[in-house]
Amino acid sequence: MKPLAPGSTIGILGGGQLGRMLAIAAAQLGFDVCIFTDEPDSPASRVAAKTIVGNYLDTAALADFARRVAVVTTEFENVPAQTAEALIAAGARVAPCPNALAIAQDRFDEKSFLQALGIATPPFAAINSQADLETAVERIGLPAILKTRRLGYDGRGQIRLKSEADVAGAYAKLGAPGILEGFCAFEREVSIIAARGWDGAIVHYDLCENEHEGGILSRTTLPAKVNAAVQGAALEAAEKVLHAFDYVGVLTIELFVMADGSLIANEMAPRVHNSGHWTIEGALTSQFEQHIRAVAAWPLGPATRLAQIEMLNLIGEDADAWLALAADPNARLHLYGKRDTRAGRKMGHVTKLIV
Amino acid sequence: MKPLAPGSTIGILGGGQLGRMLAIAAAQLGFDVCIFTDEPDSPASRVAAKTIVGNYLDTAALADFARRVAVVTTEFENVPAQTAEALIAAGARVAPCPNALAIAQDRFDEKSFLQALGIATPPFAAINSQADLETAVERIGLPAILKTRRLGYDGRGQIRLKSEADVAGAYAKLGAPGILEGFCAFEREVSIIAARGWDGAIVHYDLCENEHEGGILSRTTLPAKVNAAVQGAALEAAEKVLHAFDYVGVLTIELFVMADGSLIANEMAPRVHNSGHWTIEGALTSQFEQHIRAVAAWPLGPATRLAQIEMLNLIGEDADAWLALAADPNARLHLYGKRDTRAGRKMGHVTKLIV
Repeated sequence: MKPLAPGSTIGILGGGQLGRMLAIAAAQLGFDVCIFTDEPDSPASRVAAKTIVGNYLDTAALADFARRVAVVTTEFENVPAQTAEALIAAGARVAPCPNALAIAQDRFDEKSFLQALGIATPPFAAINSQADLETAVERIGLPAILKTRRLGYDGRGQIRLKSEADVAGAYAKLGAPGILEGFCAFEREVSIIAARGWDGAIVHYDLCENEHEGGILSRTTLPAKVNAAVQGAALEAAEKVLHAFDYVGVLTIELFVMADGSLIANEMAPRVHNSGHWTIEGALTSQFEQHIRAVAAWPLGPATRLAQIEMLNLIGEDADAWLALAADPNARLHLYGKRDTRAGRKMGHVTKLIV
Repeated sequence: MKPLAPGSTIGILGGGQLGRMLAIAAAQLGFDVCIFTDEPDSPASRVAAKTIVGNYLDTAALADFARRVAVVTTEFENVPAQTAEALIAAGARVAPCPNALAIAQDRFDEKSFLQALGIATPPFAAINSQADLETAVERIGLPAILKTRRLGYDGRGQIRLKSEADVAGAYAKLGAPGILEGFCAFEREVSIIAARGWDGAIVHYDLCENEHEGGILSRTTLPAKVNAAVQGAALEAAEKVLHAFDYVGVLTIELFVMADGSLIANEMAPRVHNSGHWTIEGALTSQFEQHIRAVAAWPLGPATRLAQIEMLNLIGEDADAWLALAADPNARLHLYGKRDTRAGRKMGHVTKLIV
């Protein structure tokens, strides 16, 4: 693919905060952005040259979108397969590839894919019935986590199974095809964020150390408290995944670091990631610009980190403290323009650079 | 004024690159932006939630704009007095104040104002006829520069007078009320960029050292090669101007540094400034965010510089090198989304951080 000239239009599926930050990065490089979203008045649409509000299964609207843009990318992995097919049928280039999206949106396929590449995962089993669950619990043991295979994020669609009592009736409670995952007694959680260009070049960011609260990322710090071997192993995993998909764009893998330094992959996100928001101020090229560079077939930028980092998510009413946060000279404040503050909703984030 | 809550709409007069970078900064803080411009498909409108395309003298369109926004600011100083009046009549808060805009758009008023504050300027005289010009040349001497009083920028509307031969017929050539300015044999050109909040607090950036080509800024470097006394004197001048206007927002003064270290004010810009583009990556708070913070009555952010800086403007066909610039790991590339490359047109810029 030839590098897209400035002034070209980049299409983004999804109107949330990731789409918003991608749109801003694209604009800074001279691109126009067209957002496709099913949400009127979305955060991303308010910084984009053009928005198409439509259903993700509306073939005509998708064809209109495809005609207007030089390349289509996405801010989320749960893009319906029909959406990607309709876009490709309408002549759109889609990056990352629909196959990466399809695999990442199914936890069972994702873990099977990772294992096939030799990347360690927690023990897991597909669960299509209460009987499946009971068999799997026998093999994997407790504690374990029962998750929906699809459409879970930020801790939703998950049931923790600590004892046999939790297992009884759990499949009915989940109410959808599931996956049972063995519990990992990890020492810390990290993520590797890396980008691959159309030419196969890979650039990676320093490992992010992540803390979650209630299943939602609350805090990311860098440098992660791991040695160089762990960073190297994480990068190796990312490279395997990127090359396996012939991937174009930014990809994230969340990993558990075990007491012996070994890594276990928790999940992958075929997109920019919350744990990479610090790159806006903290790296020479942000993950958002990096993703746009990749999908536009531009050379990737340097991922050099500029400082020690602490990134804090503003969840729900955390964002009500905007004035105090704005007054903190150490906090770089980002708010996503969401109209309603709701519990568990990502409203913004703050990045602190220790220089 | 109470700090504007995130989700409020900030109105910006003007749709150029400064409006574009202001709109992006406002979005990052969670504001919506409404652009008012007479240019369809402007660079700023492509990153704004809403755009009103209208004539700057269209009272009804301006009233519509005023109703939609919590505060109005501007990316340019040549806002017609009627525009500001119409906005204020429609109930808009305007920052910076119309008086600062009015004075900055007339070179004679501007220099008179600066002198009244005790800020040195080149010798100057109002020129309303060839006879005025000849009298002024006698007093001020040659070389000198004859400029239009109004609507000149980037070297336009200027005639250099080196000899008596240049003086003959010069007023007719200018074709508008003018100002004669004595030539300053300066050692270097610098600019001071400072912001003042609604509460009177002032934050300033390090002095920028500027090089021009053909009357257009070509290169800004920091630190400027001046001593602390020069930085202090520049800040003192900025503080005088900011307080005199009870100014709210970012203001820039371009200054000549003479061989003896004294400063002579060349002009002031009641807005963010090209010589401050480096602050996007090079300072903890960019000039654009700083301006938005000021007009939204938020606390000002720290202006701390993070590195040695070189900012290069991309003028006209300079921007055709976008691919090579994108491949330079030391260059942070910004393109403004202008549809046509024209000689002398500011198409983008590049910031290099030496860390």
